[in-house]
Amino acid sequence: MQLPENFQKTTRNAVKRLPARGHYDQETIYQILDAGFICHVGFVIDQQPYVIPNAYGREGNTLYLHGAIGNRMLNQLAYGLPVCITVTHTDGLVLARSAFHHSFNYRSAVLFGTGRLVAEEKKEHALKVITEQILKGRWDEVRTPNPQELKVTKVLAVTIEDASAKIRTGGPKDDEEDYALPIWAGVVPLQTTIGQAIPDAALDPAMSLPPSVRKLTEPVNS
Amino acid sequence: MQLPENFQKTTRNAVKRLPARGHYDQETIYQILDAGFICHVGFVIDQQPYVIPNAYGREGNTLYLHGAIGNRMLNQLAYGLPVCITVTHTDGLVLARSAFHHSFNYRSAVLFGTGRLVAEEKKEHALKVITEQILKGRWDEVRTPNPQELKVTKVLAVTIEDASAKIRTGGPKDDEEDYALPIWAGVVPLQTTIGQAIPDAALDPAMSLPPSVRKLTEPVNS
Repeated sequence: MQLPENFQKTTRNAVKRLPARGHYDQETIYQILDAGFICHVGFVIDQQPYVIPNAYGREGNTLYLHGAIGNRMLNQLAYGLPVCITVTHTDGLVLARSAFHHSFNYRSAVLFGTGRLVAEEKKEHALKVITEQILKGRWDEVRTPNPQELKVTKVLAVTIEDASAKIRTGGPKDDEEDYALPIWAGVVPLQTTIGQAIPDAALDPAMSLPPSVRKLTEPVNS
Repeated sequence: MQLPENFQKTTRNAVKRLPARGHYDQETIYQILDAGFICHVGFVIDQQPYVIPNAYGREGNTLYLHGAIGNRMLNQLAYGLPVCITVTHTDGLVLARSAFHHSFNYRSAVLFGTGRLVAEEKKEHALKVITEQILKGRWDEVRTPNPQELKVTKVLAVTIEDASAKIRTGGPKDDEEDYALPIWAGVVPLQTTIGQAIPDAALDPAMSLPPSVRKLTEPVNS
């Protein structure tokens, strides 16, 4: 499928509040998706909205979701119901002098599409995409799925039909007259950090960390 | 309002997959909510689901959401549309010997309810609840909202009608025959960490960090 360089702005994906923070280009949206691996999947059954956290993997303009064969969400979405998938990174607390101007630094992407089941013979590839999204290099280190495991796994593909991103960076913006107040203002950065890997108790203590985990836990410049 | 000690299990909130990980007691659900401040709000307009990240504050069995007066989501929810609000904490990557048994450690709470607008005279209190959820002690440090700011702020209250939590902790669970494989398995912990506060450029450099930020950034035992 040809990927659009920009998602078209529609009534569905247009950023309504603070439109200056809205982005519709593929590069920005994909960067936000590629920086994470947990999304919130929204779908509707009998007028009732559901929002369920799930792992994902992105390949081109497609997001893969997976679950057990009986997974209600995937079963519903496989009928081609409209789905909204949101990925959010919270980068900081923005503390202004006034309560009113408190905010966050964040990057979020809101995607719209419909789901379809991934065929049996393409499941393994989709599961690789999801595994690699979570931890790059892991797929080649593990025992890959056997036919029975593939059979009991459901994989859904969602083509991104339209999408938008919303990004805030930088310090607080206060009202002119509030700058004179003796109130501390600034940003408290938030970050997801990776702790020291905990080997499974049943593991041979002589076994060293695999490359995938080492890359994740080592400082970038070492 | 009388708070139920346990949310009733209904078709809406029952944990379908891996029911052993499901929790319906208030204490567990409130703990997950109180450990965060960003939720994903799901709602439906014309059959289309939307999932939007938003700050929240919990008070008893009520969640407060706020936004600008023109906020589409809040305007829609104020009509009493059903809403689903989900809060997720990702605590670790669970790396098994087989791709199939890879998982996450996580805590998530999925809430169901309907929204109602908070009356003008109760807005300030609700905004205090939200601000204190984000940063305890901040409300008493800042310039509180003036009448004009309250006027242009919309606040929604959502009573939690039913809810469920799902929690996974601990190491990987592999198939018996896979334990002999020479594949590293274990948990990579993930944590949200707080960086060094960045003072606003316009701030008097002599001004010290306020107690709210100091408490957040100092080690627990100091």
